[in-house]
Formats: sequence, C-alpha cells, structure tokens
Amino acid sequence: MDETLRPLFAPRGVVLVGASHEPGKLGYGVAANLAGGGYPGTVAFVNPRGGTLFGRPVYTALESVPDPVELAVLIIPAPAVPDALQACARRGIRAAIILSGGFRETGPQGAALEAECLRIARAAGMRLLGPNCVGVINAHLPLDTTFLPRTAAPPGDVAFISHSGAICASVTDWAAEGGFGLSYLISLGNQLDVTESDVLGAVAEDPHTRVIALYLEGVSSGRRFLEAARAASARKPLVALKVGRFPSGRRAVASHTGAMAGQEAAYDAAFARAGVIRAGSIEELFDWARALGQCPLPAGRSVAVLTNAGGPGVVAADAVERHGLVMAELSPATRRDLGALLPPFAGTGNPVDILASATPQLYAAALRLLLADPAVDSVLVILPPPPREAAEAVADALIAAAAGSSKPVVVTLLGASGVREAARRLRAARLPDYRYPEQAAAAIAALQRRAEICRAPADEPVRFADVRPHLVRALIAEQRRELGGAFAQAPAARVLAAYGIAVAPMVLARTPEEAVEAAKILGFPVALKVASPDILHKSDVGGVALHLASTRAVAADFTAILTRAREARPQARIHGVCVQPMLPPGEEVIVGAVQDPQFGPLVMFGSGGTEVETTRDVAFALAPLTRREAEGLLDATLAGRRLSARRGGPPGDRAAVVETLLRVGQLAADFPDLVEIEINPLLVFSRGVSAVDVRIILR
Amino acid sequence: MDETLRPLFAPRGVVLVGASHEPGKLGYGVAANLAGGGYPGTVAFVNPRGGTLFGRPVYTALESVPDPVELAVLIIPAPAVPDALQACARRGIRAAIILSGGFRETGPQGAALEAECLRIARAAGMRLLGPNCVGVINAHLPLDTTFLPRTAAPPGDVAFISHSGAICASVTDWAAEGGFGLSYLISLGNQLDVTESDVLGAVAEDPHTRVIALYLEGVSSGRRFLEAARAASARKPLVALKVGRFPSGRRAVASHTGAMAGQEAAYDAAFARAGVIRAGSIEELFDWARALGQCPLPAGRSVAVLTNAGGPGVVAADAVERHGLVMAELSPATRRDLGALLPPFAGTGNPVDILASATPQLYAAALRLLLADPAVDSVLVILPPPPREAAEAVADALIAAAAGSSKPVVVTLLGASGVREAARRLRAARLPDYRYPEQAAAAIAALQRRAEICRAPADEPVRFADVRPHLVRALIAEQRRELGGAFAQAPAARVLAAYGIAVAPMVLARTPEEAVEAAKILGFPVALKVASPDILHKSDVGGVALHLASTRAVAADFTAILTRAREARPQARIHGVCVQPMLPPGEEVIVGAVQDPQFGPLVMFGSGGTEVETTRDVAFALAPLTRREAEGLLDATLAGRRLSARRGGPPGDRAAVVETLLRVGQLAADFPDLVEIEINPLLVFSRGVSAVDVRIILR
Repeated sequence: MDETLRPLFAPRGVVLVGASHEPGKLGYGVAANLAGGGYPGTVAFVNPRGGTLFGRPVYTALESVPDPVELAVLIIPAPAVPDALQACARRGIRAAIILSGGFRETGPQGAALEAECLRIARAAGMRLLGPNCVGVINAHLPLDTTFLPRTAAPPGDVAFISHSGAICASVTDWAAEGGFGLSYLISLGNQLDVTESDVLGAVAEDPHTRVIALYLEGVSSGRRFLEAARAASARKPLVALKVGRFPSGRRAVASHTGAMAGQEAAYDAAFARAGVIRAGSIEELFDWARALGQCPLPAGRSVAVLTNAGGPGVVAADAVERHGLVMAELSPATRRDLGALLPPFAGTGNPVDILASATPQLYAAALRLLLADPAVDSVLVILPPPPREAAEAVADALIAAAAGSSKPVVVTLLGASGVREAARRLRAARLPDYRYPEQAAAAIAALQRRAEICRAPADEPVRFADVRPHLVRALIAEQRRELGGAFAQAPAARVLAAYGIAVAPMVLARTPEEAVEAAKILGFPVALKVASPDILHKSDVGGVALHLASTRAVAADFTAILTRAREARPQARIHGVCVQPMLPPGEEVIVGAVQDPQFGPLVMFGSGGTEVETTRDVAFALAPLTRREAEGLLDATLAGRRLSARRGGPPGDRAAVVETLLRVGQLAADFPDLVEIEINPLLVFSRGVSAVDVRIILR
Repeated sequence: MDETLRPLFAPRGVVLVGASHEPGKLGYGVAANLAGGGYPGTVAFVNPRGGTLFGRPVYTALESVPDPVELAVLIIPAPAVPDALQACARRGIRAAIILSGGFRETGPQGAALEAECLRIARAAGMRLLGPNCVGVINAHLPLDTTFLPRTAAPPGDVAFISHSGAICASVTDWAAEGGFGLSYLISLGNQLDVTESDVLGAVAEDPHTRVIALYLEGVSSGRRFLEAARAASARKPLVALKVGRFPSGRRAVASHTGAMAGQEAAYDAAFARAGVIRAGSIEELFDWARALGQCPLPAGRSVAVLTNAGGPGVVAADAVERHGLVMAELSPATRRDLGALLPPFAGTGNPVDILASATPQLYAAALRLLLADPAVDSVLVILPPPPREAAEAVADALIAAAAGSSKPVVVTLLGASGVREAARRLRAARLPDYRYPEQAAAAIAALQRRAEICRAPADEPVRFADVRPHLVRALIAEQRRELGGAFAQAPAARVLAAYGIAVAPMVLARTPEEAVEAAKILGFPVALKVASPDILHKSDVGGVALHLASTRAVAADFTAILTRAREARPQARIHGVCVQPMLPPGEEVIVGAVQDPQFGPLVMFGSGGTEVETTRDVAFALAPLTRREAEGLLDATLAGRRLSARRGGPPGDRAAVVETLLRVGQLAADFPDLVEIEINPLLVFSRGVSAVDVRIILR
C-alpha cells in the first residue's frame, strides 16, 4: 500500500475532532463507533467543552492528545476545518478524514475553503479523505470512522468504494441481509485529495479483500483510473456501477463516429481496457460482487440447470441465453447416469428436472454428476423446496456435493421466509444464493466475464514503425493555415496514407474536363462525389454518382452533382467533385476515432454506410489498441462477424481490417488535435481493404 | 363469471378425495388447508380407510358425502382418477381439481388417461382444473385447495394465474415478504379443460382483484387468449411473464420478415393488441403488479425524483430515462417554493435533493409541492433514512402528504432491516416500496404503460372496400398450378395491386431486346433486377443494375446480370430480368407479413434494404391492423420516426405508409395461405409510396 495512505485505512491511533455528547449528533455516532467498534489502536476525542465520553477523557485541544495518533477524523463546521488541519499538521498527524459538508458542494466560498484545506495538507505532507463523506470502515482491523448504525454482519471480503455517502449508508444493511461481508467501506466525498484511483491501489493489496465493488459518478482522471483499475484487476475482480448515463447536454459533432461516441462509450471502453466488470444497477453490483467473491471461475460458457420444477427451469434457461451463456449439452454418460438415478419421467436433458419428489440425496447426486461432466462449466441449482422436505436439508446436501469442486455452483432459492435458514447455510458455505433464476444466471455471466479477463493474454498496444508523423504534422500545419476544421478529401487521404492506411485513389476535379481527364487516368467506370468540407452526408444532397462508364456520363454527372449540391446547401464551400475508380464490391464497414475528454482517443468500428446511427452496430476501444482489442471490436459487431461469413462471396480480409484499426488508433493517439477521424465506408475485399471516403476534423 | 367455472373458484361445498392422515403426505396438507383455512362452505374428506381427520369424519366413498358438494379435489394416483371422476359425475359434482401428476407429462399412457378424464367430464358437464397442478386459493372467500404452507399474508388484490406450480409455491412466500396480498392463486397444470383464457374471464370480474399477474409458458389458443385478455384488460391491469423465449429450433424462412418474426414477436404483438403489460422477469412481474394494484395512473411520462442524497438521485434519474420516462421540468413556481422551503444548498432542480438533514416534515412539504406541480405526473421518493431520523417517521409524513393525490407516488427504501417498519407502514397505506431506485422507476414505467392502454381509444381494424380478393384467389390458383412456393415478381405485384397497394411499374424481359423495349416504354433511366423465385438477396449475386440511361447500357447489363446470377446460383430458376423505371429518391422501408401458427397474420414494418437482420429496426403487430396499430409501428421504429424528419428532403408520406400497412394486413388476414409477404424496399416519397421489390410465398 502507498505508505502515505496507510494512516487513513490502518492508523496506529485516531483522534476524533468534534466528538459530541449529544446522542442525536453525528459527532456522537462517530465517537460511539470508534470507541465501541473494537479498534485496537488508541482513540482520543477532542471537543472544546472537555468532559468524558464512552469512558474516555475528551481533550479540549488537539495539542493535548497523547501519542500515538496518525489519523484525525473531523466532524466540525466547515469554516473551522482549516484551523483544525493546521493543528493536525503541527501535531504531526499523517492523514485526516473530513466528514463535514459545507465545501465545494455549496458554491464558490466552499470551494475556496477546500482549496485552503488542500494547501495546508500538501504543505504538511498529510493525506485527506473527503470532505463531505461518510468515512472509512476497515472491517478486519477493525476500524469504523463513520456515524452509520453498527451492523451485525461479520467482516467479509467485499471492498466497497463509493462516490455516494447515501449508498454507503445502505450497504451495511444490505450486506447484513444479503449474506455478504465487507472488508472495506470507503466513502470518497468530494475527493479533494484522495480519489477512487488512490483507494483502488490500497484495497487491491488487502489480503481480506477478494472483490472490489465500485459506485462511480465519474473518475477524477481517466488515465490514472485506467492504470489503477488495471493493476487492481490483475489481482482482484472489480465490478463497477457507473451512474450519470443520461446527460442532458450533447456536444456538436461532425461525423457518425462523433455522434455515436460519448461518455458511455468511453466508460465502456475504459472498463474493458482495465478489466472492470460493469454492472447495470445497484442490485447487479452487489449480486455480482457476492458471486465474484465466493465462486471459482468457470472454464467456459456452458451452464447446467438443476431444478425440481419445470417452470423455474425454463425461466433459468431463458436467462442463461439472454446473458450470453449457453445451456450445456450434457454428455451421454451424464445423461445415462442421470437416467439411472432419477424417476422415470424426470428430465435428463438440460434443464435437468428431478421432479417435485426429489430428496436432498437426489439433489446432491444429480449435482455431483453435473459437476463431473466435462461439458458443464457451471451449475445453476434451483431450489423450490421440495414439498415434503425442508429447504435447509437440500441446502446441506448441495453444500456437501459442491464442496471442493472447481466449478461455480450458484443457487436460486425461490421463496422468502421458507428458505431463510437454507440461505444462511449456503452463505456460510460460500455458495451464493439468489432470489430469482434470472439473477443467478446474471451472476454466472459475471463470473464468466471475470474468467475472460483473467485468461486474456498480456498484450501491449501495437505501434507500427512505418508511419510518417512528420508528414501528418505538415498536413495539419497546412490545414491550420488554410481553413482549420474539416480537411478536404485529398489531404485527409494523405493523412491516412502517411500512417500506412490503404486509401482508394481519388482525384479532385474542379471542372467537367478535369473530371473526364481524371476518369481516363483512373480507368472507367468511376464514381463522382461532391467535395465539400461542409457536406457530411453526400448522398443526402444528391452528391454521389456511381458506375459512370463514359466520358459523357462523367461530364454530365459532374454538372448535375454540383447543381444539386449548391441547390441543397447554398452555404456550403464546394471544392469540386472527387473522382474515384469504381471498386470491386466488398463489405462496407466504418472505422473512426474521436478524442474523449476523459480517456483520450477512442477507436470505433462497425457497420458503415449512411445509417450508422440507425444500425447502431458499432463498438469502441481506447487507442492505441492492442491486437486483441482490435480483434474484439470485430467480434463485438455484426459488421465484424459478417466478414468471416460474407453472403455470396469469399470471407473479407479480417487481418487488413484489424491492421487499419490499429493504424487509425495509432494516428489518433499520436495526434490528439485530430478530434474526429472517419473512414466510411472502408471497403473490405477478400484481400485487402480500401478507404473510400475519409473525414478528418482538426481541433 | 361463466357459471360453469363458479364451482371451481367459489363452490358451496368441497370434497377432498385422497385425504390423508399422514402429515408428510400432500393429501394431509390439502386437508389441513381446507379444514383450517376458514372456508365457509362444507368440507368433506374421502379415503377408503375412513376414520376422522381434523375433527371431521372421513367418508370411505364419495357416494356417502352429504350435500352440498360442488367441487371435488382429487389427490389420488393417476390411474384411479377416471373412476373417481365417474363417481363425481354420478354424485352431481360440478367441477374437479386434479392435483395428481402422472398424466400427459409422463408420456402416451398418461395422455390417454387424460383423454379418458376429459371424456368423462365433458359427458357429465363437469369442469376440470389440472391435472398436475397446485390447485386454487380464493383468498377472500376464503378457500384453499392447495398443499402449500399456509401464509400469514392477509388477502389482497393480486390475482396470480400460473402455468408453473413451483412458482405458485413461492408466490405466497414472496407476497408475505413483499407486502402484497393475493386475491386468487390459480395453478393451471396440464390444462386438460380449463385454460388461462377461461380463468382470465373469471378473475377479471372478481371485485377483490385489482390486478392480474400471469406466468405463461405459452397459450392454449392464440385467438381465444386475445379475446379473453382484451376483455380482462378493459377492466383490470394485466401483467404477464411469458417464458420460453429462446427455443432452440427455428423454421426455415424465405424473407427478411420471416427471419425477424418468431414466437417472441408474435407474443409481443398479441400482448400489445390485448393490452397486456409484458414483464421481463419474475421480479418485474410482482414489482409491477404491486404498483398496478396500488397506485393511481400517471397522466404522462414526467417523473419528479425526491431524495435526500445525490447518489441515489442520479441512479433514479438514469433509470427514469432508461425506462422511457422523462425527468420532469419543474415549473418555476415549484422551484421558487422549494427554494423557500429548503436549506440554501439543496437542489431545486430534478432530482430534488433536500439534503441529509431533511426532517420528515421537509420530506412531506417537498412531496406536496411536487404533487401540486402540473408539470409532474408521478413522484419517485428515495428514502435513505436521514441519519438523525427513523425511516418510519419519514414514511408516516410521506403517507400523509400523498394521501388523496391522484398522482402515483412510489418509494425507494434503501437498506434492509433499518427500513422494515417504514415498509410495513407504506404498504398499509398502499404506497408501493422498492429496494432500489431502478425498480421504482421500472414500476412507474409499468403504470405509464397501463395508462396508455386505458387511454387508447376504442379502435377497430380497418378494412378497405376497394380490394379485389377474387383476383388474388385467381393468382393463387394459377401459382399453385404452375409452381407453388415463391411468386414471380409480376404476379406478386398483381397480388398487391389487387389490394390497392402502389407497386412500381415493372416488366419482365427474357432477352436483351425485350429489356431495351421495356426501358423505352418505361422511360430512361431504368433499373434491372434478376427475376428468380430462388434468389432472395439479388444484390448479393450482382443481380441488380441501377441508373441505366441508354439502350446500350440496358442490353449490356441484361447479359451481365444473367451471367453473374447463373454463376453465383447455378441451381436457381431464373426467369429473366425485371425492368423498372428509376424512381425518385425516397426513404427505403420494409413492409412484410407472416402467418404465426398461434396468433395468425402478423405485419412487420421497419428499416428496409439488405441489412434488415443487422439493423433489427422492425416492429410487429397482429393483422388486420387498426389505424392506431399501424401508426404505432411507425412510432416504434427509427424507420417510421425518420419519415417525419427526413435528412435533406421534405417529410415522407406517413399516411401512405400507414395505408400500405393496413392493406398488407388485410391481404394477409384474408389469405392465410400467403405465408410470407414482403415489400423491400417500399419507397416513401413526399407524396405517395411505391413498392419496388415484392416477395410472396404461397403455403
């Protein structure tokens, strides 16, 4: 652990500044938790009124507090905090948790107060958590600096890190009821100093922590978060709920890529890069954390469902498929053995329905067979308690059968009061239980996601050596001098070519004669496209003519295109018409890049054409890309998957697409001023690719 | 209620055949529930061994049971059931619930036994529920014919109808914990006689039932279900979980429409037609049923979020948007009054954040202001208990503030044990409580869906009088004589034209000369398309040439198309080339119809072109369509919404598209033998539409 953070999470002595004698006050609640929570270090209270509290003396000033004291917890009015921090600094205190509100969240005056606090802390080499936070629980030390009601839940293995204090206040209650224990609870508040990235590093090293759950409303620094999360994920599973998905404002964009990118795409890409599993709701966050903390990881996607009733089995099978898992095809030996074991009309397919008459012994025997089947990667057991047996008897049998298995077993306990004791036993045995089959299936999917993260080979971003950045620099300089904004087609093509990206030949023609000349050189048939930095969707203004096979057609269409374009967009700057040879047919994909304000360059891949925003078949990854990430973009989209199975033709050249993605990513990473880069379409042939239409926007 | 069903649900006397003295047996559990459940009618037990049970005599035969007895509950081995039914019939019993398993689900012998039971029942005019079911609970009579453990939950207003007995066994436990009461629980089992459709009609009339929740694994008859559900939905909200979404097998299809249709699209369309709200999980089924049973309906989509903490407010705002609702724009007066009421740094936007210091009084005052704001249709209150107040005090204040409001108020109670008493009070006051903001938002969305169903004007399918079915009959007859299967382009176009659908002129050319002749008549430029019933995707085989402006081009492309098509598909029957005039540019949409085996003709609308399965921008409705349903297909798809806002052109002719959908629906409804009909694309102009490419498959 970063030694400067240790005093925050494992101090040798704590002082509470603002301890209160009044049971209604927060300063009383914190004092109670510090004094009564079993913390093994020294605890001191400070309040100008003095007296005693929980049998301890209350000091009237920080100066009189005896050693050792490494951490100060402040719950005093905001304006008094800077002086208190000064006193802490003088006292040699190493870290402070500012629980008080009244800072940045209240306006400029509060923000100034915060800045003052940070200045004091930096000067003294002191770390700050908060302000405006709930504090820290280190459940194993134990240490509790919060004012939350104390929980009966035993310490556990989930570290919870949160931008919301209110969620912290609920999580101890959920943990007690939901059967998981916390190792850490860390409320970050305004993050004046210590941020989510600092804390990630600290808890990843904690031997009691098996899984890290994050509630995020953003990140303080995209690149720092990426590093910290990646390092943490290499040691422990990370699952995060990122909220604020629907911002009301949207910035202006000049390409399909820009329209499809946004905070959400960037976070998805960042989480993918860092190995963070993204939950979609509070419920998923903790449902998945439980499974990730308790289960071995599956070797693959095949799930066996074991049930004693048809209905919940069907519900589970639906959910398995919906979450991207597959229902296991049981091996013949397993089916035979199940057949021998089960009553005549039981289902030995998958779901395995062992009927309502199932005894605990039958549940256990069937579970053993499924766990032994190499075709099964995990088992989802459904436990509508058999009508004649207690649920806990079945739970005990399942626990014995699952013991020692290297495959995850996840249990659905249908019901509520009738299965409470069964839940208690399963939890003690570290078999996660869920209320509905859908949640159990989702939890297995989270385990599978974690398994994929762990199995992914170490991989570095690809950088090609044959690129010519000096050429791009020159083209950017020229663009700045002339126009700024959108590059014309020809220099945009040169930018791509400088990074080794295959661009279709194109000639800018300013007159019909030039167009005819160009067509003769390029060879018939040709395509004409209006050349304008101001016309994003050329076909919408009648600005495209294809398959022109004669000089007459070229000349006529040149004039027709300019007429239509000028009519449709009288304000647009029109440079002429771009002449290209008609290319052989290929798959049309889109490759783009944008600069995200938080995470930097993002590469997009997907189905191209004019309907990108309708099709929405795109995926994003952070640039520069690793080869696996580039391959992943193909796997994540229909556009990519279709390359391997093109209708009516040989497969598209996947490798050439991957190389194009890597090169575009390198270009975007090298030149952050290229705010949007878009190739649409990139034509994919059976051998090679060709960028047909290119759009680049300079900041 | 259908008078033949009354004895099943509200009998004047019940006999249990198979009552058992052994506490482990199901026949004992049923006896206990019948005897001890408070049923006001007469209860008699039958068992050949005689004796007494729960203080009542056990008769050795049905014949000796005294009057009145209208309902028999059978829990005896399957082979003994027919004889028992005969005895029931002789005794004049009107209905029987067969709890026993061992019938259809065990194979042909069991199925034969079922058929025998049905024969006996039909002959005697006796209704049957089951076999292989859990029975019936009529909670208000009360009557309990199940063997389920008796629940402490008071009777309520949710009628639950289920194809799964295991879900029934859990629902009483969930109800007790989740704070909702059941009016009916009906387990349908094998549905030998009484089906979900029969039961729907019965419970819709029940004065105690406010909402009907269905767990369905299919329906017995699509058209009967539609009628019954529609009638029930006119009186009560219906919410259904339909499982079995991911069948492994798929039938062969010959069109995009066929590929996109399927059981799920049909169920969605049927539920939409009938006014059934479709839940996606067991959790949603009961979450939504609670809200539907307890809340008034919102007048619109605008939701105000009231919270005392930022984080959960953001989570709620995300969820509101994700569920198709909108965050209300509070009126200036409300913002002003909130500003006067709340502390200086509280948020008077939406979410309204009244800060952690909020008292119960402040919660109540803010809720009153929000409910009084005409810009607010519903309020989602989040209750992380304020650190200094008990959750139940806030609950009481909220209950008082919400009392009498005509707007729904839904509460999120973050936490578990700490909010249990608050939950109890909210439930007693009929304010539904949820554990997470996401669930609360989803529940409001279900209320909004119900409001839309209720507000939808009564609407009849549109039938045009100017159609010529005799012509279609003749074309079908001709097609049967000649080929069967796929219609050639020209007769397919005539089928559409017979139903008043605008089809682009097209001429079949068998030689280059014929093609040139056709082009001259139609006027240049023209398009050529290969004409073959065996080539579904013409452009994939190079079978399309566009913008041909000269006789030479037409002749050359005619030959080129045929050469390419014969090369790509040597087995295909090729009739020649279809010549069409080039049409002005328009939006390309797809209109199709298929025959669903369960629900009959389904109409599809969406984004056309070659990428229908990629874009997946399609929606389905049952044919024949009402005008509102046709409009709904446009509203549900980007293709439809884009017509009003075409890029670079005047809006597309929505009315002409709607008319085309209505006419295609009428055609599909009139001719079930036309198993697939597809227009792709239908070109939409600013005035009018034109079917460019048509595909019709004869059964």
